[in-house]
Amino acid sequence: MSWFDKSIMARKGVAKGAALSRHEITEEVQGKYHYVYGAYVEPVLTVDPGAVVSSETHDAFEGAITSETDKPTEKLNFPYLNPQNGPIYVNGAEKGDCLAVYIESIVPRGPQPRGTTVIMPEFGGLVPTADTALLTAPLPETVRKVEVDVETGVKWNDRISLPYEPFIGTIGTAPEIEAISSLVPDYYGGNMDLPDVAPGAVVYLPVNTKGAYLYLGDCHAAQGDGELCGVAIEHPTVTTVRIDLIKGWTIAAPRLENDRFFMTIGSSRPMEDAARGAYRELIRWMAADFGFDEIDAYMLLTQCGRVRLGNMVDPKYTIGASVLKSIVGEPR
Amino acid sequence: MSWFDKSIMARKGVAKGAALSRHEITEEVQGKYHYVYGAYVEPVLTVDPGAVVSSETHDAFEGAITSETDKPTEKLNFPYLNPQNGPIYVNGAEKGDCLAVYIESIVPRGPQPRGTTVIMPEFGGLVPTADTALLTAPLPETVRKVEVDVETGVKWNDRISLPYEPFIGTIGTAPEIEAISSLVPDYYGGNMDLPDVAPGAVVYLPVNTKGAYLYLGDCHAAQGDGELCGVAIEHPTVTTVRIDLIKGWTIAAPRLENDRFFMTIGSSRPMEDAARGAYRELIRWMAADFGFDEIDAYMLLTQCGRVRLGNMVDPKYTIGASVLKSIVGEPR
Amino acid sequence: MSWFDKSIMARKGVAKGAALSRHEITEEVQGKYHYVYGAYVEPVLTVDPGAVVSSETHDAFEGAITSETDKPTEKLNFPYLNPQNGPIYVNGAEKGDCLAVYIESIVPRGPQPRGTTVIMPEFGGLVPTADTALLTAPLPETVRKVEVDVETGVKWNDRISLPYEPFIGTIGTAPEIEAISSLVPDYYGGNMDLPDVAPGAVVYLPVNTKGAYLYLGDCHAAQGDGELCGVAIEHPTVTTVRIDLIKGWTIAAPRLENDRFFMTIGSSRPMEDAARGAYRELIRWMAADFGFDEIDAYMLLTQCGRVRLGNMVDPKYTIGASVLKSIVGEPR
Amino acid sequence: MSWFDKSIMARKGVAKGAALSRHEITEEVQGKYHYVYGAYVEPVLTVDPGAVVSSETHDAFEGAITSETDKPTEKLNFPYLNPQNGPIYVNGAEKGDCLAVYIESIVPRGPQPRGTTVIMPEFGGLVPTADTALLTAPLPETVRKVEVDVETGVKWNDRISLPYEPFIGTIGTAPEIEAISSLVPDYYGGNMDLPDVAPGAVVYLPVNTKGAYLYLGDCHAAQGDGELCGVAIEHPTVTTVRIDLIKGWTIAAPRLENDRFFMTIGSSRPMEDAARGAYRELIRWMAADFGFDEIDAYMLLTQCGRVRLGNMVDPKYTIGASVLKSIVGEPR
Repeated sequence: MSWFDKSIMARKGVAKGAALSRHEITEEVQGKYHYVYGAYVEPVLTVDPGAVVSSETHDAFEGAITSETDKPTEKLNFPYLNPQNGPIYVNGAEKGDCLAVYIESIVPRGPQPRGTTVIMPEFGGLVPTADTALLTAPLPETVRKVEVDVETGVKWNDRISLPYEPFIGTIGTAPEIEAISSLVPDYYGGNMDLPDVAPGAVVYLPVNTKGAYLYLGDCHAAQGDGELCGVAIEHPTVTTVRIDLIKGWTIAAPRLENDRFFMTIGSSRPMEDAARGAYRELIRWMAADFGFDEIDAYMLLTQCGRVRLGNMVDPKYTIGASVLKSIVGEPR
Repeated sequence: MSWFDKSIMARKGVAKGAALSRHEITEEVQGKYHYVYGAYVEPVLTVDPGAVVSSETHDAFEGAITSETDKPTEKLNFPYLNPQNGPIYVNGAEKGDCLAVYIESIVPRGPQPRGTTVIMPEFGGLVPTADTALLTAPLPETVRKVEVDVETGVKWNDRISLPYEPFIGTIGTAPEIEAISSLVPDYYGGNMDLPDVAPGAVVYLPVNTKGAYLYLGDCHAAQGDGELCGVAIEHPTVTTVRIDLIKGWTIAAPRLENDRFFMTIGSSRPMEDAARGAYRELIRWMAADFGFDEIDAYMLLTQCGRVRLGNMVDPKYTIGASVLKSIVGEPR
Repeated sequence: MSWFDKSIMARKGVAKGAALSRHEITEEVQGKYHYVYGAYVEPVLTVDPGAVVSSETHDAFEGAITSETDKPTEKLNFPYLNPQNGPIYVNGAEKGDCLAVYIESIVPRGPQPRGTTVIMPEFGGLVPTADTALLTAPLPETVRKVEVDVETGVKWNDRISLPYEPFIGTIGTAPEIEAISSLVPDYYGGNMDLPDVAPGAVVYLPVNTKGAYLYLGDCHAAQGDGELCGVAIEHPTVTTVRIDLIKGWTIAAPRLENDRFFMTIGSSRPMEDAARGAYRELIRWMAADFGFDEIDAYMLLTQCGRVRLGNMVDPKYTIGASVLKSIVGEPR
Repeated sequence: MSWFDKSIMARKGVAKGAALSRHEITEEVQGKYHYVYGAYVEPVLTVDPGAVVSSETHDAFEGAITSETDKPTEKLNFPYLNPQNGPIYVNGAEKGDCLAVYIESIVPRGPQPRGTTVIMPEFGGLVPTADTALLTAPLPETVRKVEVDVETGVKWNDRISLPYEPFIGTIGTAPEIEAISSLVPDYYGGNMDLPDVAPGAVVYLPVNTKGAYLYLGDCHAAQGDGELCGVAIEHPTVTTVRIDLIKGWTIAAPRLENDRFFMTIGSSRPMEDAARGAYRELIRWMAADFGFDEIDAYMLLTQCGRVRLGNMVDPKYTIGASVLKSIVGEPR
């Protein structure tokens, strides 16, 4: 029995984590991609819990940057960035429920060099931005195109290759009444850029509105902690997720489970607020479902909590706080 | 000739700042109030530049808190807070233009005690919040109802009365593709809670989408710098604004002009980023329109710039940076 | 009777706020100026409460920048910046007491142009710094020398003059066991760069160690809120303060009183923490000495509290929170 | 040949990383422990490069908390916390050099239960503090005493034990003219609370003043990322370090090397500034010593940089940014 059979998704999901139907959102099916997370558009697909959905995702630039001589400021058209597949309407999902999304696989697609990273003005972790607004001149616009391959990884240069470690940069549900840019991460998920949102993990997302409206996109072939210059190895993919629904499990922010740990995810500014949010939710989770007293959980995480920095470049910073399953055991 | 005749609104507006037509948005006309800033709804009113619009605003709680024994957590239904009048569609407004809004008057309405302030869990400047997420227990829920009168002011208690110094807490245009909670301030305006947005001032707002979609609401009878506990003296009003349109004046964030100063407004987190954003825009404005070199403006504002803290409690903090007209003179 | 006769200093001070002796700290008496706040050096002067001390202060660069062609990076020798007069040992002062310092006058000295402001790398509110460490190139080093005169003010250029509004940029007591750079503001005072620390005000400082060890320096001829580029109009002065001692009044951070308001001063990062610290102390003060309930003070300051941004450029940001005397009355 | 033989310490150190002499700082030798990092005290030991020094460290409370019924607020006497061994004067060390400290071993000492963690008012990551000053009541004071053993680890309760993963919480050199509380981390090291500062690692520290004045203490038996409640598993130890000196290698902040990676360490507030500082130094290091162009290093770390959160509770937050040796190779 794999860990997944004991996952919360498998134990509590309406479909018990099973794959009951298969669907594809090709570029053709998707048609217009989306740039906000919201419920003001028609779903591209309606499914029951247990659906497995494969999506043809675009890279964060919708393929607009094809050459190292391209200028991002000329090719990109803010706010039409970070195109998303979906929304997927999940039958039975209502505000207060939880969507469980098991990431089955991410496979690169498109011609080589299919990976793209760039430096562009007013964006990135070590430059002035619209938020950290300074007077100094921007770094030069720079485009880097790299080959991405499942086996040989990301070829940075002749000397350096990085393993192909794909994950979903942006995934989430619609807010109840808002429609928020897909560049933003928040309590509903969105542009978290957190490398743990990878094949083999289950992401738990709050349902804020009837049907949940699941979106996803922005898959990365590799990314360091913080996504330092703001742009990971962006690449188009076929991304396959299994969707289940946990009725009545109300969570305040995204959570994640894999074979090794339970994680809560906080997105805020300044960065300490992202860390506070993630850790507080983890404590509340340990108190609600793992039999800990809150104070005890607070003191125990002081000794064994783990922090993963997702992004330090988006409108909100994202941090995941986690605890090993070997320490906390299984939730009730 | 009053200062207004030399204002940017009067000099550059399509209607030259004149009052050319009059309109009312009564509660009846408004019907459903709005809780997001966006262009996904039908305008409640369409006007040409030069329109004077009087709106019956609700208080931030839409009148739900009527007694000091009310519990905010029982009476309020997040995210249906901070109800807004509008949107007002302005003919001729296009992305890249600027909306000029002269605030003519704010008059309280409704039965006494018509002023309300509250302490509620997870909200306020000196308590844990959803962003600054801590484990300590909240302060007790507290409601304070106070009499608000134009002449006698805000009666805090038998000993203390504050002058009636009303302003518009929330005003702005629709983002291009987003629909954002009216609790949030940002580049399009929104919940800035900045006391300078008061009768006698002109607010300049970026137009992000055709028609501009002007919203306003959340008028305060009095407020200190920072809106410390998160809730000013909220009260229902009739608020009258004159709307003009400046074609081709593209601004990155709200600006403000009154008889004494020019101000730029930044909303971000952490608070230093709000200050940075406001000051950088002021420098850019001085360089673009007042004949200053950027470095010279930077050094001069070091000696005479003024900072007003709007809010330190909303999802983004708001700061206004200003410079006296007596120092910089008139823009070209 | 002036407001000073009712001040806390006059009512509670050992010397009742009176001027009982006069002392001078000339450049010759001072000899070596100091660059840290601490008790590891010999006092330059020992006084009883009631002492009036006139100090010949240097500007923040100890006069090293004499021409607009000087390069700060060549002329300045970090950490030997922001030279301080003192320390002054105050007889009878013990940990837990409060030092009251009434600022009698600040008079410019030295040859014209005696005012200096500069832009230098890694320092300032709108550039990358050692703390906000970014990769973009610094602004060009720039020096501005300006004439400073009590009557005619600060002559910025042929068109713009600013009034002479001097204050003490850096003043405080020694920490108990630390010796901290005079570039830093904190709970003991230090480099607050807060324009309210001006002639006519009383500053209240915590005594952390026997004798208090009062330092002061870094007087500014003019400064805007935030001290944007990091360097106000620095100038050498004769600064005269009257020193009294309030036994047993233990305060957590500097406070200030003038004819109009009571203020508490917070220094921290991020900026919201400076604001939180200042406002919490003000609430505690109102609860301890003005007869307010803490919750009532919190709600009242929401409606009438005032915030002054001192600096947004030093290792800690400084904010003053104040309330009008006309609102809170006199403390017990 | 172990990795250490190729370490920077072994290649560049005056003693070539060798152990040339042995010394002990017992409690008796140490006598008075220290609570500030500075050069205002006499060294407890003077050594040449190549010295191996074993120190009897106290726990962060100097053993004052012996029972779970102790009240920290009664037992502890701020600022006399976090006692440090040293200072150790290193012959030949001058400002601009680098001290290399190889951590040979950490061995617990003292009677069981020798591990201590506590919750105390105004301290910790999820409570109001002196910096994040709020009005809500503190959590109850709580003391947890746990058995700590090299083999069996940290016994949290009957069900949960954590492995013994000791590291030095506080280590650094004296600032040039300051004397800073041992509770603070900064450019000279200090209270970083970073778990990578563990046996098997080399820490590189800036020398700011003649003799370097090395201090260390505050060893932890286990700690999660962020040291959430502010107090790890504190315990007394015998900690053995080997000290070497690299002449003329001027670094702006601590660096670290172990068998797997090179790390730079940033301490600042808000947390994003700690991350910025760490990553900028790593880029500068890669540019100076590993043959990278700065822009290339910036873009590469975006794909493979690693972030470790040390503390989110001290006066400055600490973050380590690292890159695998397998990616960047060896420095020149």
